[in-house]
Parts: sequence; structure tokens; C-alpha cells
Amino acid sequence: MSEYSVSKLNKVVRGPKRASYDVATINTILDDAFLCHIGYVYNGEAIVIPTAYGRKGNKIYIHGSLKNRMMLSLLASGKASISVTHLDGLVLARSAFHHSANYRSVTIFGHVEKIEDPTEKMEALACILNHMVPEHWDNVRPPNQKEFKATLVMAITIDTASAKTRAEGVNDEAEDYETSYWAGVVPIKQVAFDAIADETLSETIKMPKSVENYIQKNK
Amino acid sequence: MSEYSVSKLNKVVRGPKRASYDVATINTILDDAFLCHIGYVYNGEAIVIPTAYGRKGNKIYIHGSLKNRMMLSLLASGKASISVTHLDGLVLARSAFHHSANYRSVTIFGHVEKIEDPTEKMEALACILNHMVPEHWDNVRPPNQKEFKATLVMAITIDTASAKTRAEGVNDEAEDYETSYWAGVVPIKQVAFDAIADETLSETIKMPKSVENYIQKNK
Repeated sequence: MSEYSVSKLNKVVRGPKRASYDVATINTILDDAFLCHIGYVYNGEAIVIPTAYGRKGNKIYIHGSLKNRMMLSLLASGKASISVTHLDGLVLARSAFHHSANYRSVTIFGHVEKIEDPTEKMEALACILNHMVPEHWDNVRPPNQKEFKATLVMAITIDTASAKTRAEGVNDEAEDYETSYWAGVVPIKQVAFDAIADETLSETIKMPKSVENYIQKNK
Repeated sequence: MSEYSVSKLNKVVRGPKRASYDVATINTILDDAFLCHIGYVYNGEAIVIPTAYGRKGNKIYIHGSLKNRMMLSLLASGKASISVTHLDGLVLARSAFHHSANYRSVTIFGHVEKIEDPTEKMEALACILNHMVPEHWDNVRPPNQKEFKATLVMAITIDTASAKTRAEGVNDEAEDYETSYWAGVVPIKQVAFDAIADETLSETIKMPKSVENYIQKNK
């Protein structure tokens, strides 16, 4: 599958020219983040919570404690909506009306399953950690039995999704180009700074390549 | 009111030591961002959408087109849940289990009203724009009648809310401090870069102080 089919649920109605249903486009936006906002229905109300995730194929993995309300509510309903957003800039137009932002965002609709199989569960945990810092799983102590049992891991299989991207300059009304109002774009980026090693760490323990690469890539 | 009362809805159960119901703490986190994730129920499913907002007192203002599904669904249900999250760092522990993030987040539960009064509506639009770039409203062309009528503006009055903050180093299991795994924090920040003036802009039009201040503060 190279495109998600468009239904009433995922169709981008406002600004359709900025929409994409392309699987590769959507996956790239998902892989550039590790923090999503997940929505669930609790007593008839929508609740939104930020959480870490990993992605493999058409599956989004999340984890939490066994009693996590969000996790349990998602399992009970069997459905999840996820939003991932990168803010790339402020679009400051001449007119208030045309103020906007440059961004890349994805909205996912999927169904939720608890991962019971130990091998799959461990792979999902590795996927979540490696989604935060690529290839870092091999540089940490893996979960022991107690930690493993205390963690609830779920897969959200993407049923349908859409991406919306704005990556351009100011669009003002024709008559406003003659005014003396300033207009421009302020680029915004989420950046990483040099790591602060744990103060109890022996000086002989070197920072792993995975962390070095992450910082270099996100500087 | 200096604290939101704690109910089943907003009580932070996981990591209660990191929770706060203090109004000033919550407002500071809200005022450091202008992009929120808002959840609404559509055909029994939770949908999460990123959107810009402003805050004044206990009201969150959002705007959109008259036919915006999110806006209309929020109005129909009368209720909204909003999440605002700042990512401040990656917490890379010795063990996979203790990996975490430093963050400041707020979850709001409120009731939704359409703003009909023209003065209040214009003030809400100014609030949203000034929340993005402080004091910028006076440097733009205000909405004309057509634009004003084409914009739906809503107030979400905060009924209850909670903040959750993590701002510390690595917490590992006692026995792991003797291992040779690396541990540390990678600080993360959303930064602004120098503005790119619209290419059609006359060189005689200077960047307003509001934009200059924004960039300086977020560099």
C-alpha cells in the first residue's frame, strides 16, 4: 500500500492542497518525532495526553504502567487517534487573517491491541527507545523480568491517516502588498544541546555513538 | 482561585509528585506555547488536532473557518480537552526502563462557547495572535468585515486542569550505578532563527520590535 484510502474520518477538508495520504510522507513525519498526542474517550469525553512512541511498518507502539488510565481506556475502546506535529516556523503576514505557521503534522486513526507475546513485546520496547535515540537500545541495560512484567505495551495499527504540511512564505491579499506592514517567516526548530553526563558517572565511561549521532543530527 | 480542585478527571495518578494544580504554574506553561493539541469526540471516536490558541485569565481562545469540523464538533459537544507540551530534554538512563523525558505539560478540561459579541471576538483574535508573537497585533492589518465574518472564534473556559513537570537528571536503580552503561540528559529546546523577510517586501519596511523581541527571546 502506498496511500491510505480517504474516508470521512481522515479526509482533510480545510486546506486540501496541503494534505497527503502518502504512506512514505506520513512515515517520514512520524519518524522525525518520538512524542505524540494521543486521544481517547473517557466517560464520553475526549482526553488528550502526550506520550512517547515508536513506529515499525504500519504499527505505532506505546507503553505505560499496568494501571495507566490512558492505556486502559484505549484498550477498552479498541481505538485511538494520534497526532504528531512539528512546528517549523511562524508565518507573519501583513494581515492578521493570513497569519499562519509552517508545520508538518500527521493524524492517525488506528485500532489498539495489547502485546502479549514476550518477543514481540521486547521488540516493541526496543522500537520505542530507538525511536527516541536511534540505535540506543544496545547501549542500555534491557528490562529485567520485574520491569518487563510491570510494563504494558500496546500496538496501534494504522487503519487510516493523513498528513498536512505547510512549508512556504507569506500569502497576503493582493491589495496588502502595497501597504507598509512588515511580513516574513521566523523559522523554528527543535534542537538538541550537548549532553550533560550523570554526575555520578565514572569519567572512564564514554558517551555512546548513538547519543553523539543524535546530538549531531539535531544540533 | 489559586488552585484547580482535583477530580477524577484531572487527577494525576501516575507520578503524582510531578503534578501541580496551581493556576500560576499552569498559566506559565500555557503562555510559553501557542500550539496545543485539542481533542474532541466525533461519532464516538476521539480525534486529536493541533491548533493555535491564546489565553486570557481562565479562557483559552481558538479560531477557525466557519465549517471547520473540529470547531463545530467542539461546539456541538460543548466540551474540550486540551494538551500543551514542552519537550525539555531526553533522559537517557542506564536501564531501558528508566528512560524518560524532561517536559512541562498541561491538560485542560473546559467548556466551549462561540464568541458572538464583536468586541470580545476581536479581542480574542488579538489574544491568539499576541500569544504567538507578543504585542504583534498592532503591527498587522486587522481583519476586515469579510475576514471577520468568515472566522469562527471560540472560548474554552478552563473548568479544571493539571500540570505535570519533569525537570531532573537520571534516576536509575541502585545496582545499576555500578555498571558501565552511560547515562545523562540531552537538553532539547525549541528555538527561533533570524526572520526571512517576504521577498516582495520593500527594503524601507523595517521588522517590528515585536518580531525582534520574539526572536531574541527564543534564540
